[in-house]
Amino acid sequence: MADALVIFTPSGKRGRFPLGTPVLTAARQLGVDLDSVCGGRGICSKCQVTPQVGEFSKHGVTVSADALSPWNAVEERYDRIRGLREGRRLGCQAKVEGDVVIDVPPESQVHRQVVRKAASDVEMIMDPATHLHFVEVAEPDMHEPRGDFERLCEALREQWQVEKVTASLPVLARLQPALRRGGWQVTVALWRGDEGVAKIIDIWPGFHEGRIYGLAIDLGSTTIAAHLTDLRNGTVKASAGAMNPQIRFGEDLMSRVSYAMMNPGGDQEMTQAVRAAIDGLARDLATEAGIGARDIVEIVFVCNPVMHHLLLGVDPVELGQAPFALATSDAMSLEARDLGFAQVNEGCQIYVLPCIAGHVGADAAAVALAERPDRSNDLVLTVDVGTNAEILLGDRSRVLACSSPTGPAFEGAQISSGQRAAPGAIERVMIDPITKEPRFRVIGSSLWSDEAGFAESISTTGVTGICGSGIIEVVAEMRLAGLLDAGGLIGSAEQTGTARCELQGRTSAYLLHDGTADGGPRILITQGDIRAIQLAKSALYAGARLLMDEMQVDHVDRVTLAGAFGAHISSKHAMVLGMIPDVPLDRVRSAGNAAGTGARIALCSVAARREVEGLVSRITKIETAIEPRFQEHFVAANAIPHASDPFPNLLTEVTLPHVSFNLAGGEGRRRRGR
Amino acid sequence: MADALVIFTPSGKRGRFPLGTPVLTAARQLGVDLDSVCGGRGICSKCQVTPQVGEFSKHGVTVSADALSPWNAVEERYDRIRGLREGRRLGCQAKVEGDVVIDVPPESQVHRQVVRKAASDVEMIMDPATHLHFVEVAEPDMHEPRGDFERLCEALREQWQVEKVTASLPVLARLQPALRRGGWQVTVALWRGDEGVAKIIDIWPGFHEGRIYGLAIDLGSTTIAAHLTDLRNGTVKASAGAMNPQIRFGEDLMSRVSYAMMNPGGDQEMTQAVRAAIDGLARDLATEAGIGARDIVEIVFVCNPVMHHLLLGVDPVELGQAPFALATSDAMSLEARDLGFAQVNEGCQIYVLPCIAGHVGADAAAVALAERPDRSNDLVLTVDVGTNAEILLGDRSRVLACSSPTGPAFEGAQISSGQRAAPGAIERVMIDPITKEPRFRVIGSSLWSDEAGFAESISTTGVTGICGSGIIEVVAEMRLAGLLDAGGLIGSAEQTGTARCELQGRTSAYLLHDGTADGGPRILITQGDIRAIQLAKSALYAGARLLMDEMQVDHVDRVTLAGAFGAHISSKHAMVLGMIPDVPLDRVRSAGNAAGTGARIALCSVAARREVEGLVSRITKIETAIEPRFQEHFVAANAIPHASDPFPNLLTEVTLPHVSFNLAGGEGRRRRGR
Repeated sequence: MADALVIFTPSGKRGRFPLGTPVLTAARQLGVDLDSVCGGRGICSKCQVTPQVGEFSKHGVTVSADALSPWNAVEERYDRIRGLREGRRLGCQAKVEGDVVIDVPPESQVHRQVVRKAASDVEMIMDPATHLHFVEVAEPDMHEPRGDFERLCEALREQWQVEKVTASLPVLARLQPALRRGGWQVTVALWRGDEGVAKIIDIWPGFHEGRIYGLAIDLGSTTIAAHLTDLRNGTVKASAGAMNPQIRFGEDLMSRVSYAMMNPGGDQEMTQAVRAAIDGLARDLATEAGIGARDIVEIVFVCNPVMHHLLLGVDPVELGQAPFALATSDAMSLEARDLGFAQVNEGCQIYVLPCIAGHVGADAAAVALAERPDRSNDLVLTVDVGTNAEILLGDRSRVLACSSPTGPAFEGAQISSGQRAAPGAIERVMIDPITKEPRFRVIGSSLWSDEAGFAESISTTGVTGICGSGIIEVVAEMRLAGLLDAGGLIGSAEQTGTARCELQGRTSAYLLHDGTADGGPRILITQGDIRAIQLAKSALYAGARLLMDEMQVDHVDRVTLAGAFGAHISSKHAMVLGMIPDVPLDRVRSAGNAAGTGARIALCSVAARREVEGLVSRITKIETAIEPRFQEHFVAANAIPHASDPFPNLLTEVTLPHVSFNLAGGEGRRRRGR
Repeated sequence: MADALVIFTPSGKRGRFPLGTPVLTAARQLGVDLDSVCGGRGICSKCQVTPQVGEFSKHGVTVSADALSPWNAVEERYDRIRGLREGRRLGCQAKVEGDVVIDVPPESQVHRQVVRKAASDVEMIMDPATHLHFVEVAEPDMHEPRGDFERLCEALREQWQVEKVTASLPVLARLQPALRRGGWQVTVALWRGDEGVAKIIDIWPGFHEGRIYGLAIDLGSTTIAAHLTDLRNGTVKASAGAMNPQIRFGEDLMSRVSYAMMNPGGDQEMTQAVRAAIDGLARDLATEAGIGARDIVEIVFVCNPVMHHLLLGVDPVELGQAPFALATSDAMSLEARDLGFAQVNEGCQIYVLPCIAGHVGADAAAVALAERPDRSNDLVLTVDVGTNAEILLGDRSRVLACSSPTGPAFEGAQISSGQRAAPGAIERVMIDPITKEPRFRVIGSSLWSDEAGFAESISTTGVTGICGSGIIEVVAEMRLAGLLDAGGLIGSAEQTGTARCELQGRTSAYLLHDGTADGGPRILITQGDIRAIQLAKSALYAGARLLMDEMQVDHVDRVTLAGAFGAHISSKHAMVLGMIPDVPLDRVRSAGNAAGTGARIALCSVAARREVEGLVSRITKIETAIEPRFQEHFVAANAIPHASDPFPNLLTEVTLPHVSFNLAGGEGRRRRGR
């Protein structure tokens, strides 16, 4: 028998090879996904395999114990120094000596699937744009006068099948010392994010033991969230959020656009501020993870269009007026130096996801990438709630998108006792419909406010305010407890029968918590707070309805709440408020920070980048700002939950009291009697 | 007759077209080279043609006077405002109404051939990487949310057949204002220097009347020569030279490499110095030509390998020691920002010609591009004399190259009275073989020193020294006049019979000019000067001989002298010195600054860049430093003209006196008697 049958699992790929063929070689020839950084030199240990022995009727083969060559010196040395797990072999050293079944463990696969733990997490396929490659370069020769770089390119072509390679001048300046210090062996970080071109991002002498990292950044109007990710396995090594320093130029998007319009050079101020903040965040994350910031070689950005333009250094003025023309909508590949990032690797590559439209940004594209509504069999409404809400509606046949200007009320801004989600903030609320007494939970404690030990559990923080999810719950609970009517009016103490409803000028406010005894604040839900929430939720609902009109449907099959906020929201309370259309409550799920997840998927996979680019080109975008029906939907959605749309699924779960409080009071009682 | 026959001259391309077809459209469909910036909108007037009327038996067609549509309003308006030359039409406006012969004048051809005037000049085909394109862009539409850039790309694709377009962030930042100010019409400078990608370098609102320019730069060790060139027609608008400021770190290449080795960061100092000088030169040239430096959108560099590396910011240390490994040898496309050029257009593209080897640089490649030895039927030796000499030997079958360390003596350095070629410098010399009296010419005057009016003609400059061509002539003339023996010894006054031969210590010197009466210097040719010239010319000759050995020939068919210096050199005198191998004197020609010409060719033509890249890959490079025969050739070439090689062609033109002067004197007379 001159050849042996080699079968790889789990792929099932098989082929016959001459005796003596290294397992790694067989894998490469069959297209089996077996990792290798050193290219088969027994240095990197990435090509570990688990040979199987015995009879495999499924494969029709019997594998004897000597189907592979015995351990060789390289493997023994590796095992001595670093330890090779029981049953493992180095694929580049073990040679085929007979029919054999070889299992490729997940950690030896380049394109391995990373199944993440939380329910809201999605599966990721590792296929990053940047890989480390160890390469042996021919020494220079006076009779063959090509440059060192050209010989490196040839080595990459021969050893790694990379055709066209470029390098920046800084890399070129480091090339000759690296080659000589490494004895004509170097490790390069090779970026292959665009078709047809590969860039050497960095170079190290010899075999580089270190790892390379990427940043997935969700650049929001209020918050910049960044995840430092290991580009080998997708692991998040550190996450951090920072306030977007542009807030000092304007709280929301339109006030920032106004700032740019009113102040010459104002756009550049904002550009510089946000770039500096991102640079600082990169440094902080590297410090936190204990790595050098130079090891950050890729950054992926998702953001709304105004943030997108300000990041790129483009004046967003056109985004402030119809027809809301983007300077550029397609995905972009940039370099760190284009954005003036000084902390990360000099050659760090940047990928910015495509924008869907002038009001629907790369953040919505990222949500689409994470949630893939275009692969859904039933009709799914995906809502990413932030200062703007991005709304996607679709299924396999078609996906629609719009954005809606909800404002920051859902994030606790514009609310009298509102605050960020931080220790001390009320995040959950229940109100007894009979006694009208509230109980609540505070971030930092797992106890409800009426449970024993609550006061001690919050002794360090106190009760400081109410965050986004808390405000939604309290407003919904007030509606359920008959403290708030469908029109959004808070009843007076007289109308509601509780002294917690206090008169504030001509309107009433509900006292959620009185902390004055402990030196804390009185936390009131004012009529103004209710109005702010009504405006926000009407905008959100109206956007969803507009998409439903376009899709010619009057209900959706399921709802996905995305956004950091979506993770904490109670679907029942959201529906009581009428934020989202009526669906069975168990068909509402939270997708966590889907935009951030989309950014991480794009960071870890070149294929995903091409996917989101294709997906975005197929999404139909609806412009809320010019659609007359948006205004109609907005007005009708002002009521809680809604003036006309029925909520049959909601009503199977809750009872909505038929109260009504006019400003003069009294009317509520009359209507209650009907 | 539904179709008409359209014949274009001078191309001879022909085809039938429906009546009413614009001439520009017919030209495009036939692939006739007819220019247009505005794409047929009657704005740019670049598509002017000269219709022919009458019988054309050669083409078998008779053209009536009404073969084209009459002048239309656009042509009349154009003629009124700017004037249309007699017989000319605008190709985009004139429509085919019958069989017609259309002549495309040279200035309407994009790829027109520019035949230059001087004999040493070469023909150039205009095919620049960067063109201006006028383009009409679709307005944004809320229902079609692509970005402005994407619509610009679509317009370029449809109107100019450009497939893949990129733009830098600064261009993107200017895009939206330009589109709006130009009423959705813009002019872009589009660079297409690399395959598969087109870059928008700059953008102007509406139709841009201005021109775009390029710099062809010959970056020498001593001098930086730059030509500001109109990228539409190849015209040189201004030329300037500046000293290379790196001279303060070392006179020649090896002393600069040493400086980098001895001083940490020394390479960066030199990089910054030369980049700043180039930046200043760009500004000065723009000022001189009366253009804005922003209109400089391309730069082409030719230079030797050490200058090449220092320009790129690569430490040249490896070039100072065997095996003289280049960091990179291939041609490079860069951007102005990569080199920190601040004066030129932000998007200015840079092309650096390929290096042939560690000692044979992009300057030699440029000489090869200008001279094309690979297209020569006979064997041509091309010598570019500078601080290093680049030597090419070849014909259609094969081209060899080497460099030889001549040092700066040929440029007047290391010569006691040497100076740069500037007014006041002696550039031509004749010595009467009987009286031993010299006559000479000085830069700035057309008179010989013994002609009437000479003194007045040089009254403003005086006689200040002797430049490169002058030193070669005086040494050769001294040899011809019997003042210098074959070994390079200057005879004493006694041996030579002229008081102009003065004793200086133990050796003699020849007094070429005594200007002390007018307060000027005494210009002496010393024994040290002769030795310096001998070393330089031996290195040059030895290099040429090494290539001849490799080619297995003992003579060449012709010699081309390149370099700014080569333009001024007397071939007879060069051969008397033994700088170049013996050929008939009429087979020696000067190619002027061939490296600079090569740079200009590459600046004006993308095809030429691909040609020089291919040519360089086919050139065989010979390393003089490691070749033992180089040393032998060098020693034998020390004699004037040569110790052993015969110079039969030279001897038909001149007589070489058989003098010999030993240090003690007297021997000369004895040998003269033989």
